[in-house]
Amino acid sequence: MNAHTNLADLEVGFDVPALPGMDEADIQTPCLILDLDALERNVKKMGDYAKAHGMRHRAHGKMHKSVDVLKLQIELGGAVGVCCQKISEAEVFARAGIKDILVSNQVRDPAKIDRLARLPKFGGRVIVCVDDLANVADLSAASQKHGTTLDCFVEIDCGAGRCGVKTSEAVVEIAKAIASAPGLRFAGLQAYQGAMQHIDSFEDRKAKLDTAIAQVREAVDALVAIDLEPELVSGGGTGSYYFESKSGVFNELQCGSYAFMDADYGRIHDKDGKRIDQGEWENALFILTSVMSHAKQHLAVVDAGLKAQSVDSGLPFVFGRDDVKYIKCSDEHGVVEDKDAVLKINEKLRLVPGHCDPTCNVHDWYVGVRNGKVETLWPVSARGKAY
Amino acid sequence: MNAHTNLADLEVGFDVPALPGMDEADIQTPCLILDLDALERNVKKMGDYAKAHGMRHRAHGKMHKSVDVLKLQIELGGAVGVCCQKISEAEVFARAGIKDILVSNQVRDPAKIDRLARLPKFGGRVIVCVDDLANVADLSAASQKHGTTLDCFVEIDCGAGRCGVKTSEAVVEIAKAIASAPGLRFAGLQAYQGAMQHIDSFEDRKAKLDTAIAQVREAVDALVAIDLEPELVSGGGTGSYYFESKSGVFNELQCGSYAFMDADYGRIHDKDGKRIDQGEWENALFILTSVMSHAKQHLAVVDAGLKAQSVDSGLPFVFGRDDVKYIKCSDEHGVVEDKDAVLKINEKLRLVPGHCDPTCNVHDWYVGVRNGKVETLWPVSARGKAY
Repeated sequence: MNAHTNLADLEVGFDVPALPGMDEADIQTPCLILDLDALERNVKKMGDYAKAHGMRHRAHGKMHKSVDVLKLQIELGGAVGVCCQKISEAEVFARAGIKDILVSNQVRDPAKIDRLARLPKFGGRVIVCVDDLANVADLSAASQKHGTTLDCFVEIDCGAGRCGVKTSEAVVEIAKAIASAPGLRFAGLQAYQGAMQHIDSFEDRKAKLDTAIAQVREAVDALVAIDLEPELVSGGGTGSYYFESKSGVFNELQCGSYAFMDADYGRIHDKDGKRIDQGEWENALFILTSVMSHAKQHLAVVDAGLKAQSVDSGLPFVFGRDDVKYIKCSDEHGVVEDKDAVLKINEKLRLVPGHCDPTCNVHDWYVGVRNGKVETLWPVSARGKAY
Repeated sequence: MNAHTNLADLEVGFDVPALPGMDEADIQTPCLILDLDALERNVKKMGDYAKAHGMRHRAHGKMHKSVDVLKLQIELGGAVGVCCQKISEAEVFARAGIKDILVSNQVRDPAKIDRLARLPKFGGRVIVCVDDLANVADLSAASQKHGTTLDCFVEIDCGAGRCGVKTSEAVVEIAKAIASAPGLRFAGLQAYQGAMQHIDSFEDRKAKLDTAIAQVREAVDALVAIDLEPELVSGGGTGSYYFESKSGVFNELQCGSYAFMDADYGRIHDKDGKRIDQGEWENALFILTSVMSHAKQHLAVVDAGLKAQSVDSGLPFVFGRDDVKYIKCSDEHGVVEDKDAVLKINEKLRLVPGHCDPTCNVHDWYVGVRNGKVETLWPVSARGKAY
């Protein structure tokens, strides 16, 4: 629990879905539950992989938005710190004592730049991404105003098609500006290929990453040639980390979804053609839901709809059940096909959400379960921290 | 503001996107803003319509989840009370002093039934929906335990295909059980045709509602025949309220989205073939977003992605702009096509969300604006209240 949360003040049902010590059967639904055994195995596995391959692992906090999950990733998984996407998320992690924070995104609004420049006062390193020369002077002015130093990555668009520059010339130009700006420090490159993470085939993902790695290598070479060797070259996700780890160019990973898994990531395949949720990673995150109406014989209605999840990447699947299928949802309801009419009123199902990141963002709490008991209750510390 | 919120404790940026008195230009994005003039006109218009047609209007609080918006609907729009979908939402409205609350949904979990049966102690009427004879005894036991009375609606599935019974025989059977159960009172019928609300054509919607009205009329006749005339026959949404109002069978409306509007409702047409957001209702709700990267000449990146909205009903559109188009989104980013490269870094856009209900549910605050100034800050009081 976070220091600010007093369990004794919380009412089960109204405030929280459960309290530690309760039986799993008594959890109020819908809510997020974490299988703590599975979570710990995932976290340890990624930590071991990074260590074995000489990579730093900067866990992506935008996925879980939880100080408690991040601390597990640091303590059990050897993560070096966190990356996140919003200044308000970075503020949550800095206030919680995290000492190496990357805002893997652009910060352009003057008020947000000011907030960013104050963050190193919490005692850690703060890194931000830059993709526009015009941003450098603003960041420099703010860090000078607050007497701090901001580390800066130049962001390369290596295929995601969002933020980031595309040419080595642009990388060099911005890196030089950062290196000579008071209050700033050129710390490396941000190169996350987001668009390929969810491509089903391992070989197709590899082809995209080969292109990205070549692009990043060219930029690194151009920087080395002018004595601006990047300390960190950071990127990689749950669908690609093995490519970056073996690239010889990247030295830092930014994986997030591996810890929880979701239906969309589960569908991609490893090098042996196996779904990555069938061996590589375990489903640790579930939406716990209850049957609340069964007025039609072959359709059960459950209490988790659009306000318990994001369906941007498709509907959830029912974990461990082949006999029932989540087929439709509206704001507060999910419709579950129940061909053999096996479901009972109040029966609980574990749903694997289509997409974990925006699903976690609609919940206030993770209910950690082990051996049928509620072991812990973790706030989604940075939920709603979007600005 | 709610009584528990002390504005002086809130930090703009970290805690809240804005404070009253600020210029609209200084709001931290992404966040929800309400055009208070448009909102008030929508609320007044629906109130006037209901009054002119002799209908009660029970505003749907599941859409906005806000005590403050509901109070506006009651005070300015003459709403008789609220309906909502979850017991935790009902608890928020009851604690805020709302005296007529319908949980337009089934409540089956024993702990939730217990919470429901305590709610009349706040001093108002509490109604719940029933679609299963087995639920009646549980509700009756709980209200007797707490010495309260629960009003009950029998829910008819008149086309939504979710909860609710389909035959008049089933309606009568459950109504009789309610009427004879201690601690319960048979109060009427819930008959919301949710599946037709978003059908584009007025005539197609009318055809669906004609069928629903006939089904409800048959159930009412069957109840009257056994001296169980329903006090309330409740239903209707933003895409159908005129049909229920003229049916001679319904006497209560449950509209929600009309107050804010969204892109999906905006696309449906009125009886003259005009989009309903072009005259019938005004867009009052927007996601305010800022341009944060423009590294590609014809693509701007804005700061509102999947964590600032739900895209279940499609992407948002940019309000009042034909020159730019929101074409793609990921967790924290929106990609805006900017063919003529007119957008500037930090320029703000108003997005009309695809679907207002689940979009409101990811935000903590409504920023109320008028004449370019922030006039008020309203908490999304029941945000995340899903259990």
